[in-house]
Amino acid sequence: MSLKFSLIQTTPLGGRRAQLDLSHQVVETPVFMPVGTAGSVKAVPQDIVESLGAQLILGNTYHLYLRPGHEAIRRVGGLHRFIGWPRALLTDSGGFQVFSLSQLRKVSDDGVRFRSHLDGSSHFFTPEHSMEVQIALGADIAMAFDECTEYPADRRRAEESLRLTMAWARRSLEHFRGHQHEVVWHDQLGRAQSLFGIVQGGMYHDLRRESAERLVEMDFDGYAIGGLSVGEPRELTLETIADVLPLLPPDKPRYVMGVGYPDEIEQYARMGVDMMDCVLPTRAARHGLLFTSEGRLNIKNKQYAEDQGPPDPACDCMVCHRYSRAYLRHLFQAGEALSGTLNTIHNLAYYMGIMRRVRADLQSVGHRSAAEAPS
Amino acid sequence: MSLKFSLIQTTPLGGRRAQLDLSHQVVETPVFMPVGTAGSVKAVPQDIVESLGAQLILGNTYHLYLRPGHEAIRRVGGLHRFIGWPRALLTDSGGFQVFSLSQLRKVSDDGVRFRSHLDGSSHFFTPEHSMEVQIALGADIAMAFDECTEYPADRRRAEESLRLTMAWARRSLEHFRGHQHEVVWHDQLGRAQSLFGIVQGGMYHDLRRESAERLVEMDFDGYAIGGLSVGEPRELTLETIADVLPLLPPDKPRYVMGVGYPDEIEQYARMGVDMMDCVLPTRAARHGLLFTSEGRLNIKNKQYAEDQGPPDPACDCMVCHRYSRAYLRHLFQAGEALSGTLNTIHNLAYYMGIMRRVRADLQSVGHRSAAEAPS
Repeated sequence: MSLKFSLIQTTPLGGRRAQLDLSHQVVETPVFMPVGTAGSVKAVPQDIVESLGAQLILGNTYHLYLRPGHEAIRRVGGLHRFIGWPRALLTDSGGFQVFSLSQLRKVSDDGVRFRSHLDGSSHFFTPEHSMEVQIALGADIAMAFDECTEYPADRRRAEESLRLTMAWARRSLEHFRGHQHEVVWHDQLGRAQSLFGIVQGGMYHDLRRESAERLVEMDFDGYAIGGLSVGEPRELTLETIADVLPLLPPDKPRYVMGVGYPDEIEQYARMGVDMMDCVLPTRAARHGLLFTSEGRLNIKNKQYAEDQGPPDPACDCMVCHRYSRAYLRHLFQAGEALSGTLNTIHNLAYYMGIMRRVRADLQSVGHRSAAEAPS
Repeated sequence: MSLKFSLIQTTPLGGRRAQLDLSHQVVETPVFMPVGTAGSVKAVPQDIVESLGAQLILGNTYHLYLRPGHEAIRRVGGLHRFIGWPRALLTDSGGFQVFSLSQLRKVSDDGVRFRSHLDGSSHFFTPEHSMEVQIALGADIAMAFDECTEYPADRRRAEESLRLTMAWARRSLEHFRGHQHEVVWHDQLGRAQSLFGIVQGGMYHDLRRESAERLVEMDFDGYAIGGLSVGEPRELTLETIADVLPLLPPDKPRYVMGVGYPDEIEQYARMGVDMMDCVLPTRAARHGLLFTSEGRLNIKNKQYAEDQGPPDPACDCMVCHRYSRAYLRHLFQAGEALSGTLNTIHNLAYYMGIMRRVRADLQSVGHRSAAEAPS
């Protein structure tokens, strides 16, 4: 027994208001998951991440495997305990970073040999090893080891990549089922970690369909749509999501990886995506880019040097409450560490606010459509 | 009318428990002031600095003058408003940083010409200009423009340096008295900024005495002992403080600038020093050095890699409450911004805890000695 997923409302457009019941947290969905790459949502203390309403954050297996090492994390009681985060966690498979960050990759059917971007040391990742590492980390949700197909990829390349991802999905699942009891924490309900499969197939509809159908057959605890936000035009992202969603079982959570801008996460959530993650709000914040109800605001701009207004007049986050644009610009210009912290807090508050609003809308639309249905 | 200083208890050893009533905060003394160099206690959001119990923080005139500029800060309502800090503020005179950070200094009786460490631009600081800048910043307490005599300094050099500091003190005071009404905020009690004079004189007792006596004659709102923590042996620091304290009026606050280690701030507070500031707890934190009830802890050390204990078992700060040594070490090793934030929060909590304990002790010792006095 793993996660429990309970639909509260479904809208005519396919949007779903649900609860994702994980061992460490009942997560209200649709949910946006802040990224905590190396065990920290960069620059923000955990109690503030909590107060922003984050229910589920993401850790990167590749980073944590390299430093401090998954065995060390297992020995200190798993990732929740290590980072002081009692709510839910999800780890990716490490695959994406192996392909995007490491050097000298060599892919075979068995797995990927790569060199660490930190010290050049050589490592070999297989689906089985990814599962071992993720079981040691002990997040509530683990992800199958996949190859994120690049964009553009021609038909032949997308087929070959998908073949690998499908074989690795099966091996991930088998290893996971055989070892998931080894996780360091114990849920009193007897629940363990959950494993999600990842739909690939590039931008080819039939490959995406094949991928989804075969994964559903394998029976994962949830399903992700991967290989998006890799440089494709946004209409393609939307089209792919719209194509794949109906192929996934309605009673299991659906996760679109690596998206997106504020309007994207809202749009996808209203279409029936239950979970999303993206480094955008946190990374952009560290570069001085704020998301606001008035659009994007580049806090570096000279025009804000004496602007006493809050970053976003419509926002009630702790940053907009207390600090001015002039101060945030000064912190950025002066290279103060507080700059990244405050900008990140605001951007996350903005993203969390969007999802709260979308959840409320989905719930009321569902109510309305139920009320309007012929009796 | 400026600050009000009210003694609550005085101990036989000279220690004083008092209240420093400033326009923005009634400060319980002895007090340790965290340093907020460029308008930020580095890496810590203001609400956390507040929750640590900081009543009075320090801003550096040199840094704020260069960036974002004192006139910009005046235009956005002064430093309190600019940085979102409603409690008390103190600004130094800029002198120390002009001498320690800037390039190509040229000192004359009139003032100091120097080049910015940021962009090499040329600036001229006089006592009058330091006052102008500090009035624009609008801290509760401003400091006279002085020359911080280096260590070692021979007799002739110390005399010459003191001559400059004394002339500049008089000019600082005159300019301040003539312009202090220009400060941007208004206290409903009609109170304005206060100005402290700074005792110099190197390590020469008679020069220190001369300095103290002449400053007292000028009648400042409070008195600082400067020119310490500049490389002299610690016995000399202690000796100088012990020599100078009795020369200062008992009914005005006494501030030792730039000290110190945890045992130092405790010792000086028990001797009758009312105010201290130092970058040590914040700067050391960013280098991974934690102050704890068990001594100094270098969080970088490998021995903490899997240490699940809190940084300081006797500390109840938000960091020791939630995070392990293993996690803090990981954050440091991984270069995570959160490392500086959490280490700084702990170190400040430790310093604030010392001062809280010293204040309680001074108050009860005072009570005891009153009770033990022959009736």
